[in-house]
Amino acid sequence: MVAENHGVQAMQNFIDPVAKIGRNVKFGHGVRVYGNVEIGDGCTIGDLSVIGYPTYRPEASPLVLGANATVRSHAVIYESSTIGPYLETGHHVVIREGAVIGENLRLGNFSDIEGSCEIGDFVRMHSYAHVGKGARIGDFVWLFSLTTLMNDPLPPSHIADPVIIGDMATVCVNAQIMPGAVIGRGAMIASGAVARGSTPACAVISGPDGENVGPTRFVMHMQSRTRHPWYKHFSDAYPERARDRLIALGAAIEAEAAALLNE
Amino acid sequence: MVAENHGVQAMQNFIDPVAKIGRNVKFGHGVRVYGNVEIGDGCTIGDLSVIGYPTYRPEASPLVLGANATVRSHAVIYESSTIGPYLETGHHVVIREGAVIGENLRLGNFSDIEGSCEIGDFVRMHSYAHVGKGARIGDFVWLFSLTTLMNDPLPPSHIADPVIIGDMATVCVNAQIMPGAVIGRGAMIASGAVARGSTPACAVISGPDGENVGPTRFVMHMQSRTRHPWYKHFSDAYPERARDRLIALGAAIEAEAAALLNE
Amino acid sequence: MVAENHGVQAMQNFIDPVAKIGRNVKFGHGVRVYGNVEIGDGCTIGDLSVIGYPTYRPEASPLVLGANATVRSHAVIYESSTIGPYLETGHHVVIREGAVIGENLRLGNFSDIEGSCEIGDFVRMHSYAHVGKGARIGDFVWLFSLTTLMNDPLPPSHIADPVIIGDMATVCVNAQIMPGAVIGRGAMIASGAVARGSTPACAVISGPDGENVGPTRFVMHMQSRTRHPWYKHFSDAYPERARDRLIALGAAIEAEAAALLNE
Repeated sequence: MVAENHGVQAMQNFIDPVAKIGRNVKFGHGVRVYGNVEIGDGCTIGDLSVIGYPTYRPEASPLVLGANATVRSHAVIYESSTIGPYLETGHHVVIREGAVIGENLRLGNFSDIEGSCEIGDFVRMHSYAHVGKGARIGDFVWLFSLTTLMNDPLPPSHIADPVIIGDMATVCVNAQIMPGAVIGRGAMIASGAVARGSTPACAVISGPDGENVGPTRFVMHMQSRTRHPWYKHFSDAYPERARDRLIALGAAIEAEAAALLNE
Repeated sequence: MVAENHGVQAMQNFIDPVAKIGRNVKFGHGVRVYGNVEIGDGCTIGDLSVIGYPTYRPEASPLVLGANATVRSHAVIYESSTIGPYLETGHHVVIREGAVIGENLRLGNFSDIEGSCEIGDFVRMHSYAHVGKGARIGDFVWLFSLTTLMNDPLPPSHIADPVIIGDMATVCVNAQIMPGAVIGRGAMIASGAVARGSTPACAVISGPDGENVGPTRFVMHMQSRTRHPWYKHFSDAYPERARDRLIALGAAIEAEAAALLNE
Repeated sequence: MVAENHGVQAMQNFIDPVAKIGRNVKFGHGVRVYGNVEIGDGCTIGDLSVIGYPTYRPEASPLVLGANATVRSHAVIYESSTIGPYLETGHHVVIREGAVIGENLRLGNFSDIEGSCEIGDFVRMHSYAHVGKGARIGDFVWLFSLTTLMNDPLPPSHIADPVIIGDMATVCVNAQIMPGAVIGRGAMIASGAVARGSTPACAVISGPDGENVGPTRFVMHMQSRTRHPWYKHFSDAYPERARDRLIALGAAIEAEAAALLNE
């Protein structure tokens, strides 16, 4: 059967010999690696993942996947993106072309990074997080489950108005970030909230009208008396090399927010 | 090992020799094609996809996949559906059995078409769009990310009350269409809105109570002075063969909406 | 090519010979089964699934997958979970480690069970249902599409406050269950609602503020004059062995709710 031969052939060719593969790279079962790819040392590519998915553009730059990535099963990462070291993905993620991603991004299952976006260092996303094309995301940002960063203000149109998410902002479960929104550093978009326009540093945005309900330092978990800003009680969740940087950045953002309130 | 043999055998048989495969069909790596399948000429089946997933019904009709489809990786398409030419899917999509789909459907990553539905020509869906069983979707419809077309009015029950989405309607990010809703042609269900009951042609439906906030022609993007109806500034996003049809349909729908307002 | 050898080797080893595989187990195409796994008799493992995904913890207990499971394609199930008989999954699901799951769980496409949770018997979930770590879910519960069971009350923090969902509760499309919520038996969280705190048995919770709008027995589908509680008209949707149990449990929960109202 000709059709069957097609398949068997493809199976045997699943890692393109022109792909540049670093040292100590581990491949799972059934992985496909296309040719326009540079995989750093120490990466682990999970079962049934596809790395360097082609855009079929003649000028496409390679996927540059930094060292020590852990890519879990059924992931799809396109060519023409640049990803810093220590990427860690859940299962079934998609990262499209043209993304420029910093160090130690962690993606939840089923996250969808639509490409041509910028993502800082130590960003964390949970399941079904959706980053629309062209978004710019700072360092230490959190996008929880079912959050969407939109980009078309008049759907459907050719107008691109992607969002900007400041350093250390947290976007909680099922919050939606409208096209063109600029989320201030350290801001918190509450669960189910809709954020539009500009959000001040360290503001809490709540509800479908995106009301600014006060500064994040008033957000507290009563039983444990734990309160925001979160970097004070959560820096140990990051790799050691990130902690001093997180704490310094957190203090700078608090100073920015305090200055805004005093104006 | 018996277990290991199981696997190796399956690998070698992954394109069933009784499947009808057209000319110039390209298969990625690790694809499985079941037997009850007719794949048109010029299709591309992405890596690790499964085509013709069996329903195990003895009378199951074949999957008829029209010519020139582009199916991206990790897709699942069942037997017993009929899909027009130029299907284009994202990654990790599911299309269940019993769907009757027109020309040039485009599906975002992780879309879920639950089957026994009708989808017109040139429909576009974004990530995590979910089409409940039995939905009827017109031509040139848009379903953006995280939209759900429901069908059970008293969950859980045996009552099926699927939705109808008129031609050229747009359902924006995270909007939910309640069971039995009938969305008028050219209507716009705003981001986060919940639509119930009947929606007039070219109405804008907004908020959790599904308020009709006016006609789509008042929806405008201020900075660019671009306004709805969208077909006037967006027809070039479609294949050339679709454009005259889109423009004529758009004009007819505007006339329908104007007549409704004059009544 | 060394890289190519890596791949081919992995392909041939995709069912680990130390995995314990029951009788009459069927494997699809391209499945990977890791070693720390016990698969019961009569299971069917769909194409391109990964079973027993390792946690890389030295003390990890095996995945125990009960008899007669139907796992559909592209599923991922970790080691260290225990799953009762007659599991039935959609496509692209993820079940993490540490889950203790009863009989005949049915999961929709793209569901995400984050692990260390308890799930009772005969639970049903639809697409994109997301069970946060540590959740406890009773018997005969329904989680419809896009529902999230959260667990961090001060995101991001180390505080874990998972939810509890009582027997026979229904969580409708796009409803969100806030951290620490305790949903009473037989309660109904309406589509789009947000549930916080404690919900009485058989209460209907509606809207973003989680208002208790009355008992479920007042919820009716007018045209068909079908009404809640749903077990009275829907027990035939379950396997025969479950029906008497469902009906007895439903009556007990109604008595509990009536007693609450009379207090």
